[in-house]
Amino acid sequence: MLKTVVFDLDGVVYRGATGIPGVAAEISRLQGKLQVLFLTNNATKSRQDYVEYLKKFGITAEKNDIMTSSFGSAHYISEKYGRGKKVHVIGESGLRDELKEEAGAVFAEENAEIVVVGLDRHLTYGKIDAGVKNILAGAKFILANSDPTYPTEDGLSLGSGSIGAALSYACGKPPDVIIGKPSLYLIEKLLQMRGAKAGEAAFVGDRLDIDMRMANEVGMKSVLVLTGVATEGDVKHAPAADQPAIVIKSAAEAGRALGI
Amino acid sequence: MLKTVVFDLDGVVYRGATGIPGVAAEISRLQGKLQVLFLTNNATKSRQDYVEYLKKFGITAEKNDIMTSSFGSAHYISEKYGRGKKVHVIGESGLRDELKEEAGAVFAEENAEIVVVGLDRHLTYGKIDAGVKNILAGAKFILANSDPTYPTEDGLSLGSGSIGAALSYACGKPPDVIIGKPSLYLIEKLLQMRGAKAGEAAFVGDRLDIDMRMANEVGMKSVLVLTGVATEGDVKHAPAADQPAIVIKSAAEAGRALGI
Repeated sequence: MLKTVVFDLDGVVYRGATGIPGVAAEISRLQGKLQVLFLTNNATKSRQDYVEYLKKFGITAEKNDIMTSSFGSAHYISEKYGRGKKVHVIGESGLRDELKEEAGAVFAEENAEIVVVGLDRHLTYGKIDAGVKNILAGAKFILANSDPTYPTEDGLSLGSGSIGAALSYACGKPPDVIIGKPSLYLIEKLLQMRGAKAGEAAFVGDRLDIDMRMANEVGMKSVLVLTGVATEGDVKHAPAADQPAIVIKSAAEAGRALGI
Repeated sequence: MLKTVVFDLDGVVYRGATGIPGVAAEISRLQGKLQVLFLTNNATKSRQDYVEYLKKFGITAEKNDIMTSSFGSAHYISEKYGRGKKVHVIGESGLRDELKEEAGAVFAEENAEIVVVGLDRHLTYGKIDAGVKNILAGAKFILANSDPTYPTEDGLSLGSGSIGAALSYACGKPPDVIIGKPSLYLIEKLLQMRGAKAGEAAFVGDRLDIDMRMANEVGMKSVLVLTGVATEGDVKHAPAADQPAIVIKSAAEAGRALGI
């Protein structure tokens, strides 16, 4: 029996600054019937930032309903290495906020124990170079997400994964961990924190090789919407691991497709 | 019969700002006997910059004696695509100077026909992002050199190749061409421009997988010095393609080892 629905955000609930018609109302309706959660690879905003952001689209959510790769990175550090570590951040304020709150991180460019890399639109040579020096000296290398690019109104822009690629190439090693989708860390943590079981949950996303792959692998019902990246044509050519259980035009149809 | 000796610079003639003892005198002596040339992967300086820089170590050289990946990139563009192209540069003043002089490049961040990537210690998110947009829109992608890092007094720093890795990952494609060593472009151009034959030339360098590999592949006598990156222990473990013909302690012994 379906008890939880997890929605991806960009391409599913909104596109950039524009809400996708009918989705806020559908989410509100579903919130009266089962547990509704949100999960995004975005590392630039904190969970609190998303509480505010979702309000603009008419969606009410609490911090604990939302999983981001910023919070996920901080939670991973706190769990695995403990609080109060010296952390060099290549990332934006949302990532720093979560690292401070969830992991008690002490920010340091030099002699850091951990380097965390996310999207950073104020990236400089010095920030990457400090990351290289820290990792070569033995610091752990945590990549918030491996997305090569992300969509903007001006086309695709450089993503977190590409900043990570520069560090990997310079240091001759891959990240110690990748937090974001299609890795299962974010979804497993979210389900666990909310007492939900994958077999009783659905994931609604817009990307085959990221969202559908993750949902299938973790054992959730995979629901593809056509308001984001993937098209019906893409579905035909996708490998079995990336095939959605259900394809719908928009998340506004999510409840009907799931029989809720 | 040996008619030309080509010296790598950093790790061979000097280390950072310090000349390696006896090398300037040996170069001066060799210049009276055969053709002495210089070749470096460095893309941040122009050939003219190196004329001035070598003077500080007591070495006299003319612009045409020197091959750099900055000049090489500009020459490649001029040969392959013609002069006056719109070029987006991720790189420093030496690269821009050569692109202007040798290729008549018109610098443009938007709608560039060619993206040239070298070491850029003033790198910003916007510069890489503009590169991504240009390459995704069809611009040619030229990497000055693929060095992951370069040595500084503070340890290894982020190199040209790592900036290229970010662009490659974001765009989902490798560079259209890599100009610097171990690619043969620089050495073949230098020998051709100076009317030299590989079979009558030696290359003196400090790296097995870059300098010795290039020299062996192009058919020059490969001479390894131990004043830079490689150690005697490294030589034992190097594959056949990277083995030097001769190992000497320092380039100050180059002439004696070559029988000049």
